[in-house]
Amino acid sequence: MKNFEFRNPTKIIFGRGVEEKVGDEVGACSQKILLHFGGGSIKASGLYDRVTASLRQAGITWVELGGVKPNPRLNLVYEGIKLCKENNLGMILAVGGGSVIDSAKAIAMGSVIEGDVWDFYLGKGVPVNALPIGTILTIPAAGSEASTGTVITNEDGWLKRAVNSELIYPRFSILNPELAFSLPRFQVACGVADIMAHLMERYFTNVSHVAFTDRLIEATLKTLISLAPLVMKNPQDYDAWSELMWAGTIAHNNILDTGRVGDWASHDIEHEISGIYDVAHGAGLAVVFPAWMKYVLHHDLNRFVQWSVRVWNVEMDVFDPEAVALAGIEKMEGFFRSIGLGTQLADLGIQDDRIDEMADKCTGGNTRTVGNFVKLDREAVRKILLLAK
Amino acid sequence: MKNFEFRNPTKIIFGRGVEEKVGDEVGACSQKILLHFGGGSIKASGLYDRVTASLRQAGITWVELGGVKPNPRLNLVYEGIKLCKENNLGMILAVGGGSVIDSAKAIAMGSVIEGDVWDFYLGKGVPVNALPIGTILTIPAAGSEASTGTVITNEDGWLKRAVNSELIYPRFSILNPELAFSLPRFQVACGVADIMAHLMERYFTNVSHVAFTDRLIEATLKTLISLAPLVMKNPQDYDAWSELMWAGTIAHNNILDTGRVGDWASHDIEHEISGIYDVAHGAGLAVVFPAWMKYVLHHDLNRFVQWSVRVWNVEMDVFDPEAVALAGIEKMEGFFRSIGLGTQLADLGIQDDRIDEMADKCTGGNTRTVGNFVKLDREAVRKILLLAK
Repeated sequence: MKNFEFRNPTKIIFGRGVEEKVGDEVGACSQKILLHFGGGSIKASGLYDRVTASLRQAGITWVELGGVKPNPRLNLVYEGIKLCKENNLGMILAVGGGSVIDSAKAIAMGSVIEGDVWDFYLGKGVPVNALPIGTILTIPAAGSEASTGTVITNEDGWLKRAVNSELIYPRFSILNPELAFSLPRFQVACGVADIMAHLMERYFTNVSHVAFTDRLIEATLKTLISLAPLVMKNPQDYDAWSELMWAGTIAHNNILDTGRVGDWASHDIEHEISGIYDVAHGAGLAVVFPAWMKYVLHHDLNRFVQWSVRVWNVEMDVFDPEAVALAGIEKMEGFFRSIGLGTQLADLGIQDDRIDEMADKCTGGNTRTVGNFVKLDREAVRKILLLAK
Repeated sequence: MKNFEFRNPTKIIFGRGVEEKVGDEVGACSQKILLHFGGGSIKASGLYDRVTASLRQAGITWVELGGVKPNPRLNLVYEGIKLCKENNLGMILAVGGGSVIDSAKAIAMGSVIEGDVWDFYLGKGVPVNALPIGTILTIPAAGSEASTGTVITNEDGWLKRAVNSELIYPRFSILNPELAFSLPRFQVACGVADIMAHLMERYFTNVSHVAFTDRLIEATLKTLISLAPLVMKNPQDYDAWSELMWAGTIAHNNILDTGRVGDWASHDIEHEISGIYDVAHGAGLAVVFPAWMKYVLHHDLNRFVQWSVRVWNVEMDVFDPEAVALAGIEKMEGFFRSIGLGTQLADLGIQDDRIDEMADKCTGGNTRTVGNFVKLDREAVRKILLLAK
């Protein structure tokens, strides 16, 4: 285990009807806020009305900024920053999924500086301050509701880049599993794949003696594998949704990588796919992960064998560990397909004609590698994308 | 799953040599502190010198209060409160195990009020403020380094009582597994039993649909069961100690009871044993838990079967689930004995002549029940203690 520091101060408010507490929670931070959301779904579902009623009751005033899209865009972030500065807003309340929350985090960092918030995403400087953020989560997937991360897409060149900072841990996150009932099935499946990917990025590590967090990650994966089919079958299954939603938060709130170093190559590769083709992040991950696994399998076969046996209940065969590892990957592909996701680029309608371009962008023209478990250069990324085609 | 709120802001600083950061961490809170510790072991080990050197370097001044005993006493708490008030100290740094940290928490609550801190332990009022606390953990066991709890013994009547409050989450906790190398083996074993008890108190719940936290608790128990024998064999096994120490914190930092209601009867019963006989808390728990399990087994046999199969690798026998459950309990008893703990009161040198008295005290003369999984009255507690004799 490596030395580590861990702190996650986000207050989680979880359960049926808890969004009605939002006014009081916001009031503890600010009286005048930016209310940030996506399309019209929160208005159609009545959530918008419940949230604004609670804000009004707590005497909170707000400025609205809707319109966040999946793979949230820098231009809308700039608009939010302008609103916060012009109106002297003291907090951002994000109502939605990971895209809305990531957009809110960018606005939070950008509203307290004179310069360009995109510089943080380019690695030019680090934030030293941010407005407080609160969230009401509607899509269990990205884990942004209790994470240090934000991923934003710059339309100018379709660059998708991330920032991590403790300053953007939300002050509170309100998680009501009922809010997920109305999600389209495909979006649910993409969320499940995203959560599983967060867990597997952490699982495949070169750090030894991480038995405890190995087991915690395995436990979380097993929970998803056993319960996701229930919500696919019955989208109103509150009990199954509860476990899924909480697992989605734990998967990405940094507790499961204490003492470890995650991989994250699959995320980097997927960012190139969704950057070009604008596919759902989770759908892209379900394609990249199996290919990545087949490519890096022999880097640490034992780790894959442990994962196959413990997570996928593959029977151990000490005489043929490779077959055990491959059986786990096959079970994972079968699981993704069973919840309606493709496992090949072709399933996403993507041809193989831009693989070289993606491999090139992903590695900065072969000037850097991606991933930690195995460091992948342009050629390696290209081979993985070919395995995925 | 029940609705819940969860927040744990304690900053964990984990790994080799991290105690040298203590001066900077303290400096962020206060320049003048109470340095609180137990017997002479931190001086003998050199830890005291390293800590004070770091404090001195950061320009921190301190007043010392050593002498905390296991089952920490109210009288020393009063002494600490007096020191904090007289010297206008702004923080308490606890260097030691759970007893030192619990004592520091009591001092932290008592130093900001005019009245008697013991009133909080008697349930007369709740704290609304507390001095900040930092800890350097030397004994993985109680989990107090990242918990809301403190247990104090009032020598006047030997009452052992608890307070829970978010105000006493430590600001930071420094966890260096190397500091546990020099612990006596019996104390290590007691710590392991205490951690396992924290997990099992949470595991046995009447709340349904808690599959995710079930699995997380099972994962933590399995980690302890597989790694505790390694540190018993080689007390300098840093890798095994790391996992054990981190598991001890996670077992009690409130994340594993999100959405659940724990039992805690075994803790209550054990408090009566250690209150009268001053035995180590963990040693008492290793005696109470098997007896409690045998007594409540049929309240929810399925839960015991799941625990036996998943945690203790008992083979499932659908035709005889009771035998499966009993086999798990037997394995647990075998495990406790394998690390040098007794599983009967007689093993602790305790006769059965004060069982009625303990059952009476535990239930306030049969005016209240203990436990949530099964509510136990005086007669039930008596029967459990008889099963344990």
